[in-house]
Amino acid sequence: MGPGPSDVHPTVLAALARPTIGHLDPKFVELMDEVKSLLQYAFQTANRLTMPVSGPGTAGMESCFANLVEPGTTVIVCRNGVFGERMRQMVERCGGIAVMVDDAWGRAVDPNKAEAALKNHPEAEIFAFIHAETSTGALSDANELARLAQKHDCLTIMDAVTSLGGIPVRVDEWGIDAAYSGTQKCLSVPPGLSPISFSERATARVTNRKTPVQSWFMDVALVMGYWGEGKRAYHHTAPINMIYALHEGLLRLNKEGLESAWERHWKMHEALKFGLEALGFTYLAPEGERLPQLNAVWVPEDVDEASARGQLLAEHNLEIGGGLGDLAGKVWRIGLMGYASRAENVRKCLAALETVLGRSGGLIAAENHLNKTLM
Amino acid sequence: MGPGPSDVHPTVLAALARPTIGHLDPKFVELMDEVKSLLQYAFQTANRLTMPVSGPGTAGMESCFANLVEPGTTVIVCRNGVFGERMRQMVERCGGIAVMVDDAWGRAVDPNKAEAALKNHPEAEIFAFIHAETSTGALSDANELARLAQKHDCLTIMDAVTSLGGIPVRVDEWGIDAAYSGTQKCLSVPPGLSPISFSERATARVTNRKTPVQSWFMDVALVMGYWGEGKRAYHHTAPINMIYALHEGLLRLNKEGLESAWERHWKMHEALKFGLEALGFTYLAPEGERLPQLNAVWVPEDVDEASARGQLLAEHNLEIGGGLGDLAGKVWRIGLMGYASRAENVRKCLAALETVLGRSGGLIAAENHLNKTLM
Repeated sequence: MGPGPSDVHPTVLAALARPTIGHLDPKFVELMDEVKSLLQYAFQTANRLTMPVSGPGTAGMESCFANLVEPGTTVIVCRNGVFGERMRQMVERCGGIAVMVDDAWGRAVDPNKAEAALKNHPEAEIFAFIHAETSTGALSDANELARLAQKHDCLTIMDAVTSLGGIPVRVDEWGIDAAYSGTQKCLSVPPGLSPISFSERATARVTNRKTPVQSWFMDVALVMGYWGEGKRAYHHTAPINMIYALHEGLLRLNKEGLESAWERHWKMHEALKFGLEALGFTYLAPEGERLPQLNAVWVPEDVDEASARGQLLAEHNLEIGGGLGDLAGKVWRIGLMGYASRAENVRKCLAALETVLGRSGGLIAAENHLNKTLM
Repeated sequence: MGPGPSDVHPTVLAALARPTIGHLDPKFVELMDEVKSLLQYAFQTANRLTMPVSGPGTAGMESCFANLVEPGTTVIVCRNGVFGERMRQMVERCGGIAVMVDDAWGRAVDPNKAEAALKNHPEAEIFAFIHAETSTGALSDANELARLAQKHDCLTIMDAVTSLGGIPVRVDEWGIDAAYSGTQKCLSVPPGLSPISFSERATARVTNRKTPVQSWFMDVALVMGYWGEGKRAYHHTAPINMIYALHEGLLRLNKEGLESAWERHWKMHEALKFGLEALGFTYLAPEGERLPQLNAVWVPEDVDEASARGQLLAEHNLEIGGGLGDLAGKVWRIGLMGYASRAENVRKCLAALETVLGRSGGLIAAENHLNKTLM
């Protein structure tokens, strides 16, 4: 129940252990086609360029920037946590110019500030933001941000690492041009792959580049020779077993239905929230800007956070996350992602916290909420 | 029995399906330390910078070039198949200047040509070659090539994707500065990770770069914040389950012993070779330049290769590889890698070929050899 990797369902682990077949085996190619269409469902898109990058979320992030940013490209980057800062570094390593829009850690991206930057930088060609900041638990209004970017004729890159499968992600409806995610959050598949989706406009931008993509491994024009339509050409050896696992995880999501999954994440979050508040915790992000799947709360001042977290792991077999950057030692990040987002985990977490902190009342507060909403 | 992914042992598949724990969990950190020391054994090195890149072999290749090549760096690249050409493209995408040393596909790299290039290009700082060319089955003399590179004061980058675990790889003894491999060849672990090892000289070159590494994801200085010694800092979420599998695969190699594994690969190759020759096949690479783990043979002129290969897969559950590039339609690549390198597979392959091609005498030739050498 940390910020990811999340708990993996046994059928996904079983899929992972299926015998490894060849990356050009007709049976594997069929499975690739299914993975593509299941990812299109998860992202709510018809984008043809939708596929898993053969590396973790950071490789998906870099695939977006390396393909879309050329030397000299101005990119507006919204920074309200660790991952906006990472975007800046990637833009600059691609030779681009990053214009930063800063918001406090724990707050959503402010659309007014974003619009001001778009107005002040008519030379900007790309607008990038984090939908669900894993370092702070803050949710930004992706729909509104993408609308503003379009109005100012920018392509939009959206980090959907922690959002995909946990809260609404509507790539086509919102007009997102490039989105990337990770398998180890709300998809509840082990870490190691990064699903991405590029709009036709983004794909055209790659095709019309003046300079080659600086990464051969991440060049989507080359990768799509393998993941695209028609005859598959070898580019790199696909991570066969991880793709089995992703396929199974996506099938599970498809069977539950996106709306049901989003609703489940919300209900479990509310139950946990009532419990945490009863135990005296307060959230880093204000109401309305909180991610249901990642509950970032201030550690009470009288608690030795590292030792309490160690005790949760050692004595209760429960992992929760610490803070990153300036928040190290100050916040806890409790994940309710994908398969882990269920009542039994809400109870387990609160019971363990009550024991370790010597407090009470959390479990019952959550239970009351669960009884109301699960009826 | 294609050019990889190779067959995976059941205990490795079982390790893959172990429950996913956190990338900073103390138990996982212990496992990382074991993986590092098992990789040091496999590479025969004491290099501290030895770890698995979180992506397939191509990501490992790019990690070497992106970290060691700066804009303007001259790199001598030996090209005797698909992967030397890939190296050239990576050098150029890093802003480097590639000086090519060409040898025919199917031949080893000629040390005389390599030395001539080193002499003619005193400005060269890096020398790169493929130890085991997966596209042709050719083996080059890594020890001799690395010696020449050192003599001319170049750092050596060696592709050990198909060699590691199948034939001798001695990073320290040969003086290799950067080596990368893949998990899906002679380590018999599913594809998705790329073990790399950098010498102190290579590590110092990264530290002393004038320009930042163009890839944030692959920047070894950042990655080593997580994989290095001391306290682990989050860089990207490690592919937990794939690392379980790599750990198990390396434990198996360690238990068998490198020398025994190399000997087994050689014996199985010889048995297959006698069988293939009895069936009328000839090798692409001349004797003395052949990889035991990858047998590339000319397809007889009267055989419809795609249909025969399809029949092997559909009717005999046997995958072998076709040719790449100019060799497409002309050669077959039969792998005897890692766990797949055993007598039962030599027999299975030859029996299937006899049935599909309507020929005979291969199985018995191999059996005679097996009887002799396995006594």
